[in-house]
Order: sequence, then structure tokens, then C-alpha cells
Amino acid sequence: MTEALLYAASRAQHVAQVILPALNQGRTVICDRFMDSSIVYQGYGRKLGDCVRVINEYAVRGCLPDITFLLKLDPEIGKNRIKADEQDRLELEKLEYHKAVFQAYQGLEHHYPERIIGIDATGSIDEIGRKIREHIEKILDLKDK
Amino acid sequence: MTEALLYAASRAQHVAQVILPALNQGRTVICDRFMDSSIVYQGYGRKLGDCVRVINEYAVRGCLPDITFLLKLDPEIGKNRIKADEQDRLELEKLEYHKAVFQAYQGLEHHYPERIIGIDATGSIDEIGRKIREHIEKILDLKDK
Repeated sequence: MTEALLYAASRAQHVAQVILPALNQGRTVICDRFMDSSIVYQGYGRKLGDCVRVINEYAVRGCLPDITFLLKLDPEIGKNRIKADEQDRLELEKLEYHKAVFQAYQGLEHHYPERIIGIDATGSIDEIGRKIREHIEKILDLKDK
Repeated sequence: MTEALLYAASRAQHVAQVILPALNQGRTVICDRFMDSSIVYQGYGRKLGDCVRVINEYAVRGCLPDITFLLKLDPEIGKNRIKADEQDRLELEKLEYHKAVFQAYQGLEHHYPERIIGIDATGSIDEIGRKIREHIEKILDLKDK
């Protein structure tokens, strides 16, 4: 619970001091991980439940992403991609934890099909980048019309 | 909001690592400030509203005090009692803030008359201590019967 509240505190500050000021200047914000990550890592992975969503909704105060890319990869392969000496508190968790996180992410993808776009992340960085770029170009194209 | 979430994170860790283990050993816990303080300082003082209560209820997970002593003092006198070089982020706030906090504490006292015991804190440390001791002895006496 302490971990979940610290992530939410960090997110509240990030939204207030970085994201909202940028949006208010009319800029586009790209953010690596947001409240979906807290929901799956703490809510599902740590089994804290729905309170993680409630706490994060207070933290972001209505500032939510228009679009989210979910890089999908078998948790076993994903875990092997992380360098051993670079693992943080969450990445060090057992495979079982990462499987629960992956399943929860797929649940969110299913629940928010318009916002969350799943991307096959088995390929190279270039391939993944190209897929994301295609989606973004499609969205920008739609917005222009 | 970041401040409120950081206090809640600290409280969650304090409850999990200090208070609950002590209670489970059958010990009596005396704590200087708890979630009432967050409700009044952040909920009312910072005008964050009821979310502070919700967040703190998640943080303490049902671990609530049996009895709370509220040391009551005119905010103007209270502020003068704090040494200038010892003021923290909250104590540095304007008198108006401290008046809102005091009013909110009185609201809680009114709302929880069985749990919160108001103590006149205009006297000396010894006098205040004696008043608290009298109340505690009364409670312990009642428990024995």
C-alpha cells in the first residue's frame, strides 16, 4: 500500500508540474507508463484491488491519456530482456507476478478498446517503433479531416 | 495532492511496520497525529476535500484509534508557540490556514464525541498532561469493571 501511495504521489506531482503545464501550452505529451501501470502492478500484481484506481484518479485529477500503446510480450521473454543489474523492485518479482500483470494489462486492453492499442513487441525496436508510428499517423490523419 | 499522498504513504508504512505489530503483541500504542490530522491539514486546510479521508482509510486499513486527544488552543497563540526555526511546511502557512485547520478539528470533535476528547491546551505542559492522565485513568477504570 505504501508503494502504491508513493507511485500515486509521484504521479500527482508529475501531472501538476510537467504534464498539465505542457498541455496548457498546446503541446503533445508522450509519457512512459501512467495510471494503467499502477492499476496492474499494484492493484492486480500486489492484489491491492480497486483502491489503486481510486487513488490514482485523485492523483491525476482528470488528466488522462487520449491513446495508450500496450507493448505485448510473453512475460517470460520480457523478463529475460531486462538486464540483471538494472532490475527495480517490481522487475525483481517472480514470473508469477509478471504473468498476473500481463493478464491484467490484457484485461484493460479489452475494457478500453478505443484507448488502448496492443502492439506485438516480439520484434526489434525498429519494428515496434514502425508499428506505433503507423498508428499515430492514422490518428493524426483522422484528426486533420 | 502530492503532499496528501506522501503523508498517506508514510502512514501506511507506519501502520504496517510499527503500529499493527505492536497491537498484535498486545501493546498499547500512543501516536502523535494520525489520519484526523491529514483530514484537517490537507482535506480542509489545503481544500482537497473528502478524498483525503478515502485515501487515508485505504492507508490505515481499518487500524483506527480507540481514543484521540485534541489539544485545543487559539491558532494565533498556537502559532506563536512554535519556534521560528522549527517550523515545517505546514506550520509555515498563514494564520488563515491554521484557523481553517482549527475549525475543522472542532468539526471532527463534534462529529466523533465518543472518540475525540478536547483538552484545553492554554495551560502549562504539566496542566495539560494532568488533564490527559485523568481521562486515561477514567477510561482504564471503566475497562477494568
